[in-house]
Amino acid sequence: MKDPSFLKNMTDAELEQTAEDIRSFLIDKLSVTGGHLGPNLGVVELTLMLHQLYDSPKDKFLFDVGHQAYVHKILTGRADQFDTLRQHKGLCGFPKRSESIHDCWETGHSSTSLSGAMGMTLARDLKGTDEHIIPIIGDGALTGGMALEALNHIGHEQRDMTVILNDNEMSIAPNVGAMHNMLGRMRTAGKYQKAKDDLEMLIKKVPAFGGRLAAAAERVKDSLKYLLVSGMFFEELGFTYLGPVDGHDFHDLRANMSYAKKTKGPILIHVVTKKGKGYAPAENDAKGTWHGLGPYKIESGEVVKKPGPPSYSGVFAETMKTIARSDEKLVAVTPAMPNGSGLDKFAKEFPERMFDVGIAEQHATTMSAGLAAQGMKPVLAIYSTFLQRGYDQLVHDVCRQNLNVMFAIDRAGLVGADGETHQGVFDISYMRHLPNMTLLCPKDENEFQHLLYTAYQYNNGPIAVRYPRGAGTGAPMDEELKELSIGTWESLRSGGDAAVLAVGTMVPVAEEAAELLAKEGISVEVINARSIKPLDEEMLKRLHEEGKPLLTLEEHALQGGFGSAVLEYYNNENLYNVPVERMGIPDWYIEHGSVSDLLKEIGLTADNTAARIKSILPRKQQRA
Amino acid sequence: MKDPSFLKNMTDAELEQTAEDIRSFLIDKLSVTGGHLGPNLGVVELTLMLHQLYDSPKDKFLFDVGHQAYVHKILTGRADQFDTLRQHKGLCGFPKRSESIHDCWETGHSSTSLSGAMGMTLARDLKGTDEHIIPIIGDGALTGGMALEALNHIGHEQRDMTVILNDNEMSIAPNVGAMHNMLGRMRTAGKYQKAKDDLEMLIKKVPAFGGRLAAAAERVKDSLKYLLVSGMFFEELGFTYLGPVDGHDFHDLRANMSYAKKTKGPILIHVVTKKGKGYAPAENDAKGTWHGLGPYKIESGEVVKKPGPPSYSGVFAETMKTIARSDEKLVAVTPAMPNGSGLDKFAKEFPERMFDVGIAEQHATTMSAGLAAQGMKPVLAIYSTFLQRGYDQLVHDVCRQNLNVMFAIDRAGLVGADGETHQGVFDISYMRHLPNMTLLCPKDENEFQHLLYTAYQYNNGPIAVRYPRGAGTGAPMDEELKELSIGTWESLRSGGDAAVLAVGTMVPVAEEAAELLAKEGISVEVINARSIKPLDEEMLKRLHEEGKPLLTLEEHALQGGFGSAVLEYYNNENLYNVPVERMGIPDWYIEHGSVSDLLKEIGLTADNTAARIKSILPRKQQRA
Repeated sequence: MKDPSFLKNMTDAELEQTAEDIRSFLIDKLSVTGGHLGPNLGVVELTLMLHQLYDSPKDKFLFDVGHQAYVHKILTGRADQFDTLRQHKGLCGFPKRSESIHDCWETGHSSTSLSGAMGMTLARDLKGTDEHIIPIIGDGALTGGMALEALNHIGHEQRDMTVILNDNEMSIAPNVGAMHNMLGRMRTAGKYQKAKDDLEMLIKKVPAFGGRLAAAAERVKDSLKYLLVSGMFFEELGFTYLGPVDGHDFHDLRANMSYAKKTKGPILIHVVTKKGKGYAPAENDAKGTWHGLGPYKIESGEVVKKPGPPSYSGVFAETMKTIARSDEKLVAVTPAMPNGSGLDKFAKEFPERMFDVGIAEQHATTMSAGLAAQGMKPVLAIYSTFLQRGYDQLVHDVCRQNLNVMFAIDRAGLVGADGETHQGVFDISYMRHLPNMTLLCPKDENEFQHLLYTAYQYNNGPIAVRYPRGAGTGAPMDEELKELSIGTWESLRSGGDAAVLAVGTMVPVAEEAAELLAKEGISVEVINARSIKPLDEEMLKRLHEEGKPLLTLEEHALQGGFGSAVLEYYNNENLYNVPVERMGIPDWYIEHGSVSDLLKEIGLTADNTAARIKSILPRKQQRA
Repeated sequence: MKDPSFLKNMTDAELEQTAEDIRSFLIDKLSVTGGHLGPNLGVVELTLMLHQLYDSPKDKFLFDVGHQAYVHKILTGRADQFDTLRQHKGLCGFPKRSESIHDCWETGHSSTSLSGAMGMTLARDLKGTDEHIIPIIGDGALTGGMALEALNHIGHEQRDMTVILNDNEMSIAPNVGAMHNMLGRMRTAGKYQKAKDDLEMLIKKVPAFGGRLAAAAERVKDSLKYLLVSGMFFEELGFTYLGPVDGHDFHDLRANMSYAKKTKGPILIHVVTKKGKGYAPAENDAKGTWHGLGPYKIESGEVVKKPGPPSYSGVFAETMKTIARSDEKLVAVTPAMPNGSGLDKFAKEFPERMFDVGIAEQHATTMSAGLAAQGMKPVLAIYSTFLQRGYDQLVHDVCRQNLNVMFAIDRAGLVGADGETHQGVFDISYMRHLPNMTLLCPKDENEFQHLLYTAYQYNNGPIAVRYPRGAGTGAPMDEELKELSIGTWESLRSGGDAAVLAVGTMVPVAEEAAELLAKEGISVEVINARSIKPLDEEMLKRLHEEGKPLLTLEEHALQGGFGSAVLEYYNNENLYNVPVERMGIPDWYIEHGSVSDLLKEIGLTADNTAARIKSILPRKQQRA
């Protein structure tokens, strides 16, 4: 399968067989590596048909979000790399331009494909070339504001483009929003032809209404509205609407896609697919487990679970439930991540106090500001890199109005297999300069529950707790929630030769490094810098007075990060002679791989930390 | 006019008179202070009717963007403050909670009101209170992605809310996009009743089609589609649509708004208004001049222009034209700011190479990435605070894919009268940590043209030139564009006692400070730090070797800004003993006022810079 042109002359029977082979391959390979099984099983026929009808790489496929590009990768010569899927230096789980000339557009976050496609379409028309531009976007991604901005502009420009709407009835979580209801009506409305037939029947009956024409007109209007609704939304925006098309029927796909290929202007083909198609456990997935997952047993569909400490998102959900039981003001908000954030558990107990707004981070952020403006205490659970979408809303609506919105920033730090687009390594830098903002980060899941409680009690403006993906450290969990003092750090271990100021996940690394050095007779203080804004100025003063060399350690970009905040503090206080060394994430995007492999690669390990501390020992403070 | 309740029992005749008084007042007052005349003249009747029918502050009005809230301010006891409009410590040009209990939601940026309203609506329903929530949003703001996200969610939730769509046919620039075309069709379609009448007529005629029913059905379908289009878009999303309503007819407004008030679920009232209504020069404004402007002569409608050096946006437009004449790859993109950015001038010469995508910063950013991915060289002209909306697109689409997108970041630094929401003082902090990004800033308009040319020639990834609002410094303009070396600064004046590293607008301030100190025999080097990322490391090394105290000076937030970049550099190089002092914008939002007043208030003046330099003179470098 090195070149997709082998598909060109395949019969439907051959395509069916190929589809079956691909499904077996995916179910088999992903049972070992994990990955986005459900979405890929849903687009097997669609992807085969794309490659049969169009000429990649000349024609451009833009896979929105991109986790559904596995079939495309198989068809473009990368089947033999699936054993390394989402692993360090292995096959990327998303389209990757460096992997193949068939990957023309990289994704990871949702709702970008239409804008990218519009840019490519303008480029094509300005250059006078004739390639086809085909974004493939899911119904969930379509609720993202930037996709709607793009639809509006594409409809206005009326250039040739074929948008494939991959309507799989369920995106990551069951979809939210009016647009989803509309797509649902389209789905049940049948095809254009059917609507036209019904219309004809109706018109035949009109004379029977006799003299009561006005009332009839009312009824006709309502009926017609629902009959003609197929595609009306998109047609109103200037698209030619085709569909709904059965996304698992080669004949139906070919008929509509061939028609689109020779039709001018923007076309939207509404393809209905089934997530997990062809593998029963994934097909019957109500919770979204099979959207993306780790290894599983093929026969039973049993997901392989490693025993271990509770996850941060689990602790988050439990803590929110505990607080909500005694405080009516708590309202939880999530942009399409009820499962990932743990809020599905919260919603079971407080269904009327959890709002899943769909893939709509901007709206989620400002809606939370609206809740706070009227005296509620909203908790917005959002991933570090998805809050990037709400940055202006942070600046303009939340921090500027100084509203009591609490942010639970999940997936802060390296996330591993999802790679570059999902590594939460910029949030300190994009939030630290926001006036009125407070930013906390726990060293373990026990401190996490207390920081959540602390943040919830805080009522002087916006506050955020950032925390990593995955399991906690195994710290014993206190029974009672307690309020910690904002702007204070804790010294976990004393030491006279140097001090490490570590943030979150790096606290255990610092402790291990100190342990290693203790064996060599070097005594290192370890500080849990759990308050990033404000800093613990008392402790920083004390450290300056002691004069020992300092190392800041964070799983975050060095530019503008926690270490820079420490530099700024000493600079503001005119303490130029404090020897500070900074460790963190360098100035490039960190690819996919296990978190431990990645940390090794960039040197954020205990060994390396110990070595770095040793290297700075000679730098005793130069007293003025 | 202290309390809006005086409007409750006014007759239409009295309201007419009040409207006339308000118009005269606005035209009169703004002729001296300047401000957003056009938008406010358009909403006089609408605002009067809001206050007649609803009870502010119990009921909540959320003015989207907020520059159309002057009438609301007049009606809520602030008429006597209009002489200070948009001036330092004076009346704010946008809603301001600290000004009045009648201002419940602050704005400045577009498209936030629906999300804020949704939050307030959820809060109301959870608390069990019964206030009305009424966002007022323009047709331009509706193309912003977050407004569309909110529409989707509001339609889904089906809670009581009345959205006023203020369709003034022209937002800041003539509107772009399919949605605008759709609103245009609604506008011409007349009201519901009219549509129903037409439908009735049509149905009466159906029997006349005889046996050719299938073809007739086709035709009927097309006709009906356009007849029923009124409100279909919003009704599809789950709203009850009312309108179009004549926004200058009290009777029409009252009838629809009263109906909405007692109707359940989300309502959208489509109000058609005329920007500039009642003042001929503003009514006949094709270019958007009267949207927001400075002082003018009432009789003639002549805008008072101060002679002076060319504006930065003017230089930008000229430079783009010059480059575009010899390079076909240049494509200009603007999100709804063709006039403000100067690109309207570019579009006159290159209409097919300028794309105004409407208020859609996310789409604009990623569409530019798409253009670059296919070999074009897009130049995205965008204001510093509006690019905040495209932050994730910068991270995820542009920088991560390392595409050759050029950003012309206008309104960087303090902008003055527009205040908090528009002060461009965060862009260095939100861009400096982005891998692959290059960031430049000119000291004057001559260097600006060369930096634009330099950035355009650069083809190793994204690059941005940030520049201030308004007029240049009066620097003589070179005839020929030239390429400057990225990552180099220029020393404008030598001096052995200290050095100032100044960015952009602060370079002349530094020069003036050096001049002042020269009179006291203190010799200060002045450096134009025009490359913010990368820094000029050679020069920083040289400065370290010289050992004199350094002052960084920027019209930008201190957290994560240019000064922090300098601290980080010396820290990376283990040069702990360089005495650096930093001046910039403190950690709070800067209110409205003239730029010079604001700079004085926060101490970014030549006098203060000189004083600060003197204070650091004793800090000679402590050699290790």
